[in-house]
Amino acid sequence: MPDSCVFCRVVKGEIPSARIFESNSVIAFLDIAPAARGHALVIPKKHFETISDVPERDLREMIVAVKNVASAVVDAAEADGFNIIQSNKQVAGQVIPHVHFHIIPRKEGDDLSFEWEHIELDKEELEALMKKVKSKIRKK
Amino acid sequence: MPDSCVFCRVVKGEIPSARIFESNSVIAFLDIAPAARGHALVIPKKHFETISDVPERDLREMIVAVKNVASAVVDAAEADGFNIIQSNKQVAGQVIPHVHFHIIPRKEGDDLSFEWEHIELDKEELEALMKKVKSKIRKK
Repeated sequence: MPDSCVFCRVVKGEIPSARIFESNSVIAFLDIAPAARGHALVIPKKHFETISDVPERDLREMIVAVKNVASAVVDAAEADGFNIIQSNKQVAGQVIPHVHFHIIPRKEGDDLSFEWEHIELDKEELEALMKKVKSKIRKK
Repeated sequence: MPDSCVFCRVVKGEIPSARIFESNSVIAFLDIAPAARGHALVIPKKHFETISDVPERDLREMIVAVKNVASAVVDAAEADGFNIIQSNKQVAGQVIPHVHFHIIPRKEGDDLSFEWEHIELDKEELEALMKKVKSKIRKK
């Protein structure tokens, strides 16, 4: 747990936060720079950089927390839906290197959009990629 | 399981897909309209509209699949990071009403961005919202 990690300091209470949920290994709090009213973050208490670093046990607890917190913030913000966004590594927009799930409540007419342009990928490329991915799936 | 659901038909094999992973209640396949090479979808075999509808047991299995599939697609696509995006309800950009996690590999210099403008929310509003959310968190 690096002393300089903002989210580790939030967990320890050294930095104040609008905490809304706590379980064994997970906390959730309202984002102080929200995309929308009710924007919440779900993080593990332990320091892991990305989702790939989180042990399955903690990850399972995190996603159940995400589900529960999402219902509460959507209800409280009187939203119509929500996005879950989880970014890994700086190239993906991860700012704080302590794994976190964003829960962003959505309303009709808001200015948010998490859409993308489609790239072209022909059938042969898709098939080759499929085989390559399958060869890399971790076997239990 | 509505007969018309595209993802239910993918699960049943009625619609072909580049399937890369299967476990007890979850499958993953490459998106045919990808944001990036290696863009994958993780879905439950059973039909649920949003993450809020997914029982905890299936949800835990889904997120472990997301973690495993993400490592494989990032590796196969030689990417530097990835985003997980999960959208609930049409207002949030959900097109197919069968819950799914997007895994989008990211590379330096790609054209993707899942950023947002911050809204203003003063300390009093944040505090009031925090209390409201806490009152709505589901108690076990």
